Amino acid sequence: MDKAFIIDKDRKQRLGFEEVIYGASKSTALLSELLEDYSEKNKNVLITKLQQEKAIVLLNVYRTAFYDDESGIFMLYPINKIENHNAKVGIVSAGSSDIGVANEAYYTLEYMGVKSHVIHDVGVAGLHRLLSKIELLKTFDILIIVAGFEGALPTVVGGLLPQPIIAVPTSVGYGSAKHGETALHAMLTSCANGITVVNIDNGYGAAMSAFRMLKLVENQ
Amino acid sequence: MDKAFIIDKDRKQRLGFEEVIYGASKSTALLSELLEDYSEKNKNVLITKLQQEKAIVLLNVYRTAFYDDESGIFMLYPINKIENHNAKVGIVSAGSSDIGVANEAYYTLEYMGVKSHVIHDVGVAGLHRLLSKIELLKTFDILIIVAGFEGALPTVVGGLLPQPIIAVPTSVGYGSAKHGETALHAMLTSCANGITVVNIDNGYGAAMSAFRMLKLVENQ
Amino acid sequence: MDKAFIIDKDRKQRLGFEEVIYGASKSTALLSELLEDYSEKNKNVLITKLQQEKAIVLLNVYRTAFYDDESGIFMLYPINKIENHNAKVGIVSAGSSDIGVANEAYYTLEYMGVKSHVIHDVGVAGLHRLLSKIELLKTFDILIIVAGFEGALPTVVGGLLPQPIIAVPTSVGYGSAKHGETALHAMLTSCANGITVVNIDNGYGAAMSAFRMLKLVENQ
Amino acid sequence: MDKAFIIDKDRKQRLGFEEVIYGASKSTALLSELLEDYSEKNKNVLITKLQQEKAIVLLNVYRTAFYDDESGIFMLYPINKIENHNAKVGIVSAGSSDIGVANEAYYTLEYMGVKSHVIHDVGVAGLHRLLSKIELLKTFDILIIVAGFEGALPTVVGGLLPQPIIAVPTSVGYGSAKHGETALHAMLTSCANGITVVNIDNGYGAAMSAFRMLKLVENQ
Amino acid sequence: MDKAFIIDKDRKQRLGFEEVIYGASKSTALLSELLEDYSEKNKNVLITKLQQEKAIVLLNVYRTAFYDDESGIFMLYPINKIENHNAKVGIVSAGSSDIGVANEAYYTLEYMGVKSHVIHDVGVAGLHRLLSKIELLKTFDILIIVAGFEGALPTVVGGLLPQPIIAVPTSVGYGSAKHGETALHAMLTSCANGITVVNIDNGYGAAMSAFRMLKLVENQ
Amino acid sequence: MDKAFIIDKDRKQRLGFEEVIYGASKSTALLSELLEDYSEKNKNVLITKLQQEKAIVLLNVYRTAFYDDESGIFMLYPINKIENHNAKVGIVSAGSSDIGVANEAYYTLEYMGVKSHVIHDVGVAGLHRLLSKIELLKTFDILIIVAGFEGALPTVVGGLLPQPIIAVPTSVGYGSAKHGETALHAMLTSCANGITVVNIDNGYGAAMSAFRMLKLVENQ
Amino acid sequence: MDKAFIIDKDRKQRLGFEEVIYGASKSTALLSELLEDYSEKNKNVLITKLQQEKAIVLLNVYRTAFYDDESGIFMLYPINKIENHNAKVGIVSAGSSDIGVANEAYYTLEYMGVKSHVIHDVGVAGLHRLLSKIELLKTFDILIIVAGFEGALPTVVGGLLPQPIIAVPTSVGYGSAKHGETALHAMLTSCANGITVVNIDNGYGAAMSAFRMLKLVENQ
Amino acid sequence: MDKAFIIDKDRKQRLGFEEVIYGASKSTALLSELLEDYSEKNKNVLITKLQQEKAIVLLNVYRTAFYDDESGIFMLYPINKIENHNAKVGIVSAGSSDIGVANEAYYTLEYMGVKSHVIHDVGVAGLHRLLSKIELLKTFDILIIVAGFEGALPTVVGGLLPQPIIAVPTSVGYGSAKHGETALHAMLTSCANGITVVNIDNGYGAAMSAFRMLKLVENQ
Repeated sequence: MDKAFIIDKDRKQRLGFEEVIYGASKSTALLSELLEDYSEKNKNVLITKLQQEKAIVLLNVYRTAFYDDESGIFMLYPINKIENHNAKVGIVSAGSSDIGVANEAYYTLEYMGVKSHVIHDVGVAGLHRLLSKIELLKTFDILIIVAGFEGALPTVVGGLLPQPIIAVPTSVGYGSAKHGETALHAMLTSCANGITVVNIDNGYGAAMSAFRMLKLVENQ
Repeated sequence: MDKAFIIDKDRKQRLGFEEVIYGASKSTALLSELLEDYSEKNKNVLITKLQQEKAIVLLNVYRTAFYDDESGIFMLYPINKIENHNAKVGIVSAGSSDIGVANEAYYTLEYMGVKSHVIHDVGVAGLHRLLSKIELLKTFDILIIVAGFEGALPTVVGGLLPQPIIAVPTSVGYGSAKHGETALHAMLTSCANGITVVNIDNGYGAAMSAFRMLKLVENQ
Repeated sequence: MDKAFIIDKDRKQRLGFEEVIYGASKSTALLSELLEDYSEKNKNVLITKLQQEKAIVLLNVYRTAFYDDESGIFMLYPINKIENHNAKVGIVSAGSSDIGVANEAYYTLEYMGVKSHVIHDVGVAGLHRLLSKIELLKTFDILIIVAGFEGALPTVVGGLLPQPIIAVPTSVGYGSAKHGETALHAMLTSCANGITVVNIDNGYGAAMSAFRMLKLVENQ
Repeated sequence: MDKAFIIDKDRKQRLGFEEVIYGASKSTALLSELLEDYSEKNKNVLITKLQQEKAIVLLNVYRTAFYDDESGIFMLYPINKIENHNAKVGIVSAGSSDIGVANEAYYTLEYMGVKSHVIHDVGVAGLHRLLSKIELLKTFDILIIVAGFEGALPTVVGGLLPQPIIAVPTSVGYGSAKHGETALHAMLTSCANGITVVNIDNGYGAAMSAFRMLKLVENQ
Repeated sequence: MDKAFIIDKDRKQRLGFEEVIYGASKSTALLSELLEDYSEKNKNVLITKLQQEKAIVLLNVYRTAFYDDESGIFMLYPINKIENHNAKVGIVSAGSSDIGVANEAYYTLEYMGVKSHVIHDVGVAGLHRLLSKIELLKTFDILIIVAGFEGALPTVVGGLLPQPIIAVPTSVGYGSAKHGETALHAMLTSCANGITVVNIDNGYGAAMSAFRMLKLVENQ
Repeated sequence: MDKAFIIDKDRKQRLGFEEVIYGASKSTALLSELLEDYSEKNKNVLITKLQQEKAIVLLNVYRTAFYDDESGIFMLYPINKIENHNAKVGIVSAGSSDIGVANEAYYTLEYMGVKSHVIHDVGVAGLHRLLSKIELLKTFDILIIVAGFEGALPTVVGGLLPQPIIAVPTSVGYGSAKHGETALHAMLTSCANGITVVNIDNGYGAAMSAFRMLKLVENQ
Repeated sequence: MDKAFIIDKDRKQRLGFEEVIYGASKSTALLSELLEDYSEKNKNVLITKLQQEKAIVLLNVYRTAFYDDESGIFMLYPINKIENHNAKVGIVSAGSSDIGVANEAYYTLEYMGVKSHVIHDVGVAGLHRLLSKIELLKTFDILIIVAGFEGALPTVVGGLLPQPIIAVPTSVGYGSAKHGETALHAMLTSCANGITVVNIDNGYGAAMSAFRMLKLVENQ
Repeated sequence: MDKAFIIDKDRKQRLGFEEVIYGASKSTALLSELLEDYSEKNKNVLITKLQQEKAIVLLNVYRTAFYDDESGIFMLYPINKIENHNAKVGIVSAGSSDIGVANEAYYTLEYMGVKSHVIHDVGVAGLHRLLSKIELLKTFDILIIVAGFEGALPTVVGGLLPQPIIAVPTSVGYGSAKHGETALHAMLTSCANGITVVNIDNGYGAAMSAFRMLKLVENQ
């Protein structure tokens, strides 16, 4: 059998970003092997959805690496904070239970060199909390809206604001929440116009979608 | 084989209301037989979800009967409008496509002797339309909230108002709306507190639930 | 990133009750932070579906707090029993396996200042047990009916008694019980009239719905 | 290509009954061909779930054939009523909408030479109607219980009576009834003991199961 | 709150058998309480689907109790083997992975005083193994057929033998086996005639159904 | 009852576009009433998913209106073609069966004043057809990718090109295509980065999402 | 907009066969256009799942074309029967209701120049019918097994015979048959070894899979 | 009760291969018993999906046995590598997370005496990686394509290459990946021609299907 992975060498040139590693289904051994490759080349790499027990093993070897245990985001080298300009992406979460997914979007954008701002806990059952943030939300180019349970937040925001909106359903909830399926389908069938949706808990995908849009703006 | 139905004679005494007939799966022949029974006893009866082609046949026989073709509600005798007091139940619909289900609730309440008021098309994607109706909504004892697509309206109303809220998902929408399942599950997993839910398109059930609550108030 | 939560300050005024915290998806760290806020303000708070291992940590800090390990209900301060009047809400469970959900309703009502009474193990496969309790059930303003497996109990009670009935499906059962989905859908499609339903295992939601109804009665 | 069917010649000897034809998915042409085979051999045959438009064509050719349009049962030759003994099988339906499925069981048993008795409309939302029939139900060897919507009837009967109970879910209902799936799963997860279940709307299968049981009794 | 359970006192008289306890969702504390009740009355009781860790605790207290760890069956007192007559029920399993469910049926029948015989590993992918057992299978009054994966065994047996057949789908398999749902639906839609089905992994229910049938035979 | 609809008057100001009408679930009567309102104000309006039989009635009244029978798009007044600049949005379909959904996106963009270009039938089972179009695809700001069956096209395009990609699953296919659900879920779980998804058959939503992105570009 | 289709010109060279047209979702207009293209080039083409009403229109224009109304197979020019050698593929159907799917496989193979033989109605509920055909089945290189309802036939055949087996689930059945999903999943989770499966009702796909295998044999 | 298993003695003669044991649902005790039987007869045996904790126990007894912990494959005796001829089967995986399933196919083929070659990580989101392997892929008789997430790889390969293709969906992914269901259904509804599919994660089944095809080739 051949080696279990092939690095996608010209992805950066083709798409403007490097390959990213989905960590959840890979063994620690395979991940170590991959990290060694990147480390030798002095290249940074992003791993998503890395479980804590595997992160502990890897952090023991790569001691300068970064790991966020709410989201499972791992980077071989931490990113210097981007301070000198305004956040382009607003990440809005419906409840504080959605923090892991919001963080996944936040750190992915950081890794891509995009500054973002997270606004927590503005779910639609307390509408005034959302309404008090509308002026702030208007300042972002793109909105990533993270919500579990019934997933109504992107619909309400989408009816109030004109920016591109990327809705991220989360698996927060129980029973009829169906591990995020209800929020997913609610967002897909939103009566607000022009909302797009990514997979359940996919903060990473939302960030990459925002990145594609920002690239479009830059290229103008 | 025996006769295909048995009238539940003491339901009125037990529950405070008469039996109601589910029309969708019964043949015109069987329905005619049932209506004859009621007609002979000079008793009114409510049939729900009656298809138009069957209604036409029955209306031909029972010429004074009432039929609403948006909802499929049929009554042997029409009800006199209740004018002398305020509406106790507010029926709120998210979109004008939900009219059939809202009407089913409205006419069922009318049949039960309860005055209600229908407010259409205040879906959450145009929040200001809802907000402009809040003062009106505060005047009702009970709110029946009817919504299809992502079914977010009861969540938003439930976060704003303290009354009992009966959420009715409708089968309006396509694809991920799943014939009303998405709205149903979204309402059940609402992050607003104390919302109860009835079956998809079940305007009748929402009205009966409101009736039970109003009976409770009357009995105090 | 901002703080992960925003207390909904005027909810009490708007809805008549304080915010409640869903404990299942929040880290112990976040919950501690939240409790500190409430503790400093000398305000009580209710946490639902708190797992035992997290409760142990929190109880170690907040030693006067209350925790029920059948339901996962946690309160910062225990509630004084309400003794001087009759129970307004009857909580009826189909089987002794439903005890956790029944308790969630019971303690939520206690927290809201409403006295309730729990009647266990009157499932419809032993009808006489239910029938022997009918006179008692008639004394309550509202009935919360908790059932897993096939979830038939609310249908039978709904055909016998005229009060508002809030049906709570539970995830008790296996195979075709589908973690409560079968009971949920059976309750939604009940042939009894005017039954409303809350999410699977949502004893808390049922209690809040009862609270809304009792508020309506009080306001008359 | 060979002929599209092969008659199972020794089924009678093996199983005690002849082959039966599922009519719903066969073309009128194929059914005509099959009937001709049986007609030539002067053998009776049962066709199930035959649609009305196909029945009309076949009845035009086989003018003495029997067709019941509620159930779609077709027999090449009608059966003489069995009058001289008591009914061995009680067929109990929850609502008058279940008549088609009840009839399918009834006529299948008639075809197999077994006398049965149909009791309609004793659904659990009007419990007294059921309780008033209990003495009658005790007289049957076997009970076939037919119910749509939430499908609670077999559970209640199974808790009251000791006979073998064959539960038949029907596709009557809408929304959460899911074309009979809810009733099916409710019956499978019944908290009553020893209830067995057949496919949705499968009155035929229930009758054949009863036939197998009665054969067992006869062989003692 | 009242006591969490009520013993169904006259079930034996009504149905011919005592109540049985579903062990999976009950706490060890509640089960201990229940067992104490039975123990004090010197009555035996059957607990189903009892997890090993809870069984260990209970066996420590009730040292003469019986527990089968393949099926999770627990009895307060073991049953004396029935030796003096032939087995009335044949329990046939498709694969050796189905042993837990077959045992559940076996021990339940033993508890009910019915002798049965288990035949393992005669799945339809090795048809000759089944065919070599046909003469043996003919000797039983009733057949309980246990199968996971595609669940084809009851169909093949049902086409070969005339007895009552109770099909039990098991959760053995992965992927498209869907935790037993595929076997369940395959059995329900079997092209063999008159097969009845119980819930996934419900060996207990199959045994109780067989018991009802044998009672019928005895009563003739 | 009030009028069944309320025009969202300031949506243009808030979001940059007017309200659009979902035609599928509205009666011809209600649609006529709505069109009259718009016609009187000399305002154009877009109706989506309008069935042919209803369109015929409306076209009879509004004779200058535009209707596309592949997509069900209806506009009160046709739009003048935009000729003087390049298409900003590329609409790519996997197969010629997806034409209706591609047209829905095309005409919606036309209505919004955005020029687009449709490229049909470049599904991944004939990869060379897609590869021969890559240079053309690079010229668009945004790509809308429409695909039914297994929905693989957005994944392949997303791995080759850096623009924002809006994936639209269609209900084309049978069996395991599940009316578009398989394509939907495949797109959501794409291994390509940063693809966003809209509801099944929702060409309209994809166009509106593209519109939001183009607005963002314009505002820079 | 460009033309709605692009003929895949070098597919024959790449894969050894021409493109085939899925007819179900294409308008008669589009199909006419496609056929004209092929007709002008004097090339034959296969259309699958063509509805009868569309076939009638096309047959009126292309009077020498072939159409089979059981399967919906349409060919621009009929194929000369292949008589001079033995059938390489055996197509086995469980019931005569599966004829349409069996025909789809048969005519596709005919179009590809492969002779096949159809054996109908050997479902596993009448095992002797299957067993009597085993010697015949041994003579084929490849077996295509077509079955609806519980889909058990491929499992039984796969346990008896060593050839490659392509299982085709059909949508024949009702209720728990779930439009072919149960048969599909049963075949995928078959306890027989090395069975492969195609989509529900996909006789065409089964034939193409057989064609790939026969090509492999030829190339040796 | 009889012994829990019966070895299928003449399977080798009938089908050309020995029985294989599904390890996931069997207890270590039962597996030990089975291995003892094989060991005594000096016969090798293959166990699939054996969990690590059970493997450790068995390896302790059968010290020369082989176990691969990525796939859970266990063989009583390891197989000598086949070196002297080219690989007949190409096993292609979309991502390095699919390694376990690819290994299951690889070792099963090895056990069957068939040489194969594994090519990892050529998913369609990096198309050039796949295209660079096309010449290599052309050298194999049969292709087994393993993919999780959206499962698009078999479709793309199937459009490029003419060999028999066996698609294996894997449970790699989250949310909309639905534990492999999305990949499964995507493969079944592939727009590429003649692809066959096996159960989710069923590398073993794919290998056995390839074995049947290779047998066919050998027999020519």
